[in-house]
Amino acid sequence: MSPTAADAHDRPGVYSQPGTEYQRDTRYIQTRITADGRDGYPVEPGRYRLVVARACPWANRAIIVRRLLGLEPVLSMGVCGPTHDERSWTFDLDPGGVDPVLGIPRIRDAYLARFPDYPRGITVPAIVDVPTGAVVTNDFAQITLDLSTQWTAHHRPGAPDLYPEHLRGEIDEVADLVYRDVNNGVYRCGFAGTQDAYDTAFRRLFDRLDWLSERLATRRFLVGDSITEADVRLFTTLVRFDAVYHGHFKTNRSTLAQMPVLWAYARDLFQTPGFGDTVDFTHIKAHYYLVHRDLNPSGIVPGGPDLTGWWTAHGREELGGRPFGDGTPPGPVPEGERVPEGHGAPRG
Amino acid sequence: MSPTAADAHDRPGVYSQPGTEYQRDTRYIQTRITADGRDGYPVEPGRYRLVVARACPWANRAIIVRRLLGLEPVLSMGVCGPTHDERSWTFDLDPGGVDPVLGIPRIRDAYLARFPDYPRGITVPAIVDVPTGAVVTNDFAQITLDLSTQWTAHHRPGAPDLYPEHLRGEIDEVADLVYRDVNNGVYRCGFAGTQDAYDTAFRRLFDRLDWLSERLATRRFLVGDSITEADVRLFTTLVRFDAVYHGHFKTNRSTLAQMPVLWAYARDLFQTPGFGDTVDFTHIKAHYYLVHRDLNPSGIVPGGPDLTGWWTAHGREELGGRPFGDGTPPGPVPEGERVPEGHGAPRG
Repeated sequence: MSPTAADAHDRPGVYSQPGTEYQRDTRYIQTRITADGRDGYPVEPGRYRLVVARACPWANRAIIVRRLLGLEPVLSMGVCGPTHDERSWTFDLDPGGVDPVLGIPRIRDAYLARFPDYPRGITVPAIVDVPTGAVVTNDFAQITLDLSTQWTAHHRPGAPDLYPEHLRGEIDEVADLVYRDVNNGVYRCGFAGTQDAYDTAFRRLFDRLDWLSERLATRRFLVGDSITEADVRLFTTLVRFDAVYHGHFKTNRSTLAQMPVLWAYARDLFQTPGFGDTVDFTHIKAHYYLVHRDLNPSGIVPGGPDLTGWWTAHGREELGGRPFGDGTPPGPVPEGERVPEGHGAPRG
Repeated sequence: MSPTAADAHDRPGVYSQPGTEYQRDTRYIQTRITADGRDGYPVEPGRYRLVVARACPWANRAIIVRRLLGLEPVLSMGVCGPTHDERSWTFDLDPGGVDPVLGIPRIRDAYLARFPDYPRGITVPAIVDVPTGAVVTNDFAQITLDLSTQWTAHHRPGAPDLYPEHLRGEIDEVADLVYRDVNNGVYRCGFAGTQDAYDTAFRRLFDRLDWLSERLATRRFLVGDSITEADVRLFTTLVRFDAVYHGHFKTNRSTLAQMPVLWAYARDLFQTPGFGDTVDFTHIKAHYYLVHRDLNPSGIVPGGPDLTGWWTAHGREELGGRPFGDGTPPGPVPEGERVPEGHGAPRG
């Protein structure tokens, strides 16, 4: 049986040693959509469809960046449900269970349209070439960078520069530490096969969170004085921290709410258009607790945490910074892409 | 196979309907040790041995009450390890894995000495008649009341009255609500067989905790102005809340630390001699996470929570009250009964 587990993001099928340390399979489809079309897929309005699941932190990055840059009119979005069967994330939220643009019930079909024997994980985010119905790329780390750097001709007026040239070195450096210890670190805690592997991942996670707290105590954003790709990447893990990682992945030295700097930082971003308005806590909780039955055999989804804190004042304006640099916040979420009523954090 | 599961406290084998709502088996051995010896077991110094596990909240009640009343010289204590095999809690902490007084490796042996075909749960706390090696009672709710009311001739000078006659009605009433919704409520969350049963238990738990927060906002202790049995019973659940129930049992609307009144109340008791000095967080975490493999298949024990908060100032003195009424706090924990170094909450 080929390792096409639908949640290959989570369970790569590749471990350094079975039952020990969790190691993510990082072999993605690296074809890029670029301004010059060097890989055969040029940037083109209306040609591609970004497929996401709101539950998934890696997909959440792409949802946020697309919003911040105002790419909604040129890059449509298909949304998979929070759970998936053993073969694939599915379009179970859509009428008839079929994506209205791609006409397929599961994103796997778009992977097979590209590679009939596709042997690796069926993951989101994925960008599909609508005319051929084939996945162009699922390389989540490159996807957001390319939205920032290759799709510039289609950015909205006032779009921020999330990956400014003079800060790329620092953004990459911070993002790499955040990826290893935080974004992937929570998974290393949750999927550790031994107590030792867990203990190591736990220590690295909270050491890094302490380091981030210190860094963010005196500066509003991670790099420079505006929101960058680095903030987007940290945010998607922080926003899931108390809802799923703390209990389900045992990342429980402290809740996010007990780490004052990070909690204020996360709220600042959450309250910024383009961040919190992409977050579906109902999908997040359903995904982790229903899909990982080996961690949660009962499939019972917790009632907590209380989400009312997300809209409380964060006080981070005092640190200065210009969230959008010389740009402006994005407008309201387009009709049809709004997180359903009751799935977000209630406003007071 | 008879239902002699060792953790019968947790898994009674009796459900209202299989796979739905958790229902505790409350059929205990109801023989009482009384001043008048009406059941054949008169109060007698040195005759009985209280068998506990520090992990177990029901046993923790008896450990606390024995300490507060200064019964250590007349009622010895045997301590089982945090985990147990399918047959029984065991004396795996003792040299040779045998209780030095009873000479048995597992508490089950004392149950069988009383009833060779004992069909129900092998639970702690249990009080054993040392001469016969037979369990007298495991009726945890009655055990502490009898320590308070039947062993009075042997209470230390200055022992508090934990069950004063004129407050018994109110203590019973509060304790009953606390038992249903909190002490047992956390188990109803953790062992719920359906989402509905969980949701109901979760709502009842937090409704009751909110009610308790309100009650305790203006009074230092639950009933009257001194520590009573009611406080002991609430404390043993609160002290385990963030360490195990919040994640493992999904009681995660809020952490204890996020409920300011209850958190201060719990710290007040924790810092009172006889409470915090009985608490072994290492045993608590090991027990829940290692024994309930159906909730935690990996058996990995979380690194959190951070326990440093337990010794921070609670400010509850302002509410008045006299913790020990006309009495005094107990002295230091006897040599040989101390919670091992590193198993408690670190003092700042």
